[in-house]
Amino acid sequence: MAPDRLSTTFAALADPTRRAILARLTLGETSVTELAEPFDMSLPAISKHLKVLERANLIVRGREAQWRPCRIEPRALKEVDHWLERYRRFWDESLDRLDNYLREIQAKEKKRSRKRRASPARKGVLK
Amino acid sequence: MAPDRLSTTFAALADPTRRAILARLTLGETSVTELAEPFDMSLPAISKHLKVLERANLIVRGREAQWRPCRIEPRALKEVDHWLERYRRFWDESLDRLDNYLREIQAKEKKRSRKRRASPARKGVLK
Repeated sequence: MAPDRLSTTFAALADPTRRAILARLTLGETSVTELAEPFDMSLPAISKHLKVLERANLIVRGREAQWRPCRIEPRALKEVDHWLERYRRFWDESLDRLDNYLREIQAKEKKRSRKRRASPARKGVLK
Repeated sequence: MAPDRLSTTFAALADPTRRAILARLTLGETSVTELAEPFDMSLPAISKHLKVLERANLIVRGREAQWRPCRIEPRALKEVDHWLERYRRFWDESLDRLDNYLREIQAKEKKRSRKRRASPARKGVLK
């Protein structure tokens, strides 16, 4: 069975070099040679990564035979963003819980310091 | 070299069954038996997928020996969301371009229909 599109996208993104290539391409379209420069990698190794990214529709390459510039194709990443949608409420909820927890701590802290302010006076009375 | 965290997350998400398990867990925490029900899979096969999700910190499992309920752990997905951030402008830009293109077409269409309205009158004058 051929992997579904989202699986192909995630598999392509599961590599730090391929993600670094994508990050580089956010600056603009680039030739393979230019792309290879910051990496300690041979051109064929970079080309292999580019093929994976291209197959996953994460990049497109120009059709000029001499200079086939790569650029980001955003559709596949947009699908990841769309997929994430239903999970967003989970970290929003976690933030809400953290927020509530901090409020609780602050409330306790206030109560405690009010008691502290009150007790020396009482001590004074008891002396 | 151990894969970095984001690579582990993406690799875990590159499987439709594991994504279906996550989707199921958005409804609430669930036992492995319950989770396995809608899938045509053995319990050990599901357990294997759960282990991948757990190692990627996408789910956490309760510590009760008998019933180890699974639930979503949102942090890893939040990291994916954060990683996507710098790419968002690409599809926003694409939408902007589409918007501009549609405006252009509409403007041309208006111009053409204005000409069409104007020309019968001119024709009338010329007759």
